[in-house]
Amino acid sequence: MRLSDGVEWGVHACTLLAFMPADAAMPAGKLAEYHGVPAAYMAKHLQALAAAGVLQTVKGARGGYRLARPPAEITVLDIVEAVDGDESAFRCTEIRRRGPLARPAREYTKMCGIHAAFDRADAAWRNVLAETTVADILSGVLEDLPQATLEKGARWVQESAR
Amino acid sequence: MRLSDGVEWGVHACTLLAFMPADAAMPAGKLAEYHGVPAAYMAKHLQALAAAGVLQTVKGARGGYRLARPPAEITVLDIVEAVDGDESAFRCTEIRRRGPLARPAREYTKMCGIHAAFDRADAAWRNVLAETTVADILSGVLEDLPQATLEKGARWVQESAR
Repeated sequence: MRLSDGVEWGVHACTLLAFMPADAAMPAGKLAEYHGVPAAYMAKHLQALAAAGVLQTVKGARGGYRLARPPAEITVLDIVEAVDGDESAFRCTEIRRRGPLARPAREYTKMCGIHAAFDRADAAWRNVLAETTVADILSGVLEDLPQATLEKGARWVQESAR
Repeated sequence: MRLSDGVEWGVHACTLLAFMPADAAMPAGKLAEYHGVPAAYMAKHLQALAAAGVLQTVKGARGGYRLARPPAEITVLDIVEAVDGDESAFRCTEIRRRGPLARPAREYTKMCGIHAAFDRADAAWRNVLAETTVADILSGVLEDLPQATLEKGARWVQESAR
């Protein structure tokens, strides 16, 4: 099982947007350039994040993207679900209903125990990702970056944001 | 992200093998028939389970598969990892090292906070699946099945096991 690359890109893009002044907007092309990823794919993921209400689209010549709410109110899970959907990694195909012991559909009133175990695991996975916000990620980045890189980043954002 | 169908098949197959007398073996074709799934795919997953030490292969005319250890000592996670591997759903491609702020590789000494959050989520997911054993799944199935179906199942196993 594998999450789409867009999840990693989406969390990084939101982290960069969290570093930007709240009233500015960053064009999709600049977000792709900053992360060294193909512009068309980045644009697709940014659109998904906007559709899910994580990002706000700013129209016009000075347009681009900004966070739709404060970084402390956007979780990693919000981004995962915007980019990759909210389906569990396990899809129960109800094979228990096939084969020589199959019974009428109405008799399967209780969820299969296997399905239930994967649902519990999926909930645990999502709970952890709901505990980490974009603000947490940004503060970790800011702690780790050398001062010179931080200043270079601030200049880049100033030149690229609108 | 999605687990392979083989995970569902693998857990069901182990549950059926747990219902069988411990010294018996069930041919791959019978395990496929019981679950109503294609024999070639089921065989592939059974081989993966045997390679991982979850199942034991019995050779010869009366050959087939049996559990390699008691059902209470086989977890759902063991089966997931045998069939689908143990890689996290999130693969960090280190995009933080690209773009205008890229630094020399030696300066990235700490794991990216995004990668760390997904590692925590992955550990939580695996922990839950490690808590549920094939014995737990079987006892849930036995509780739910009507007596007539149980008896039909026991007969089927008796006719099919070797």
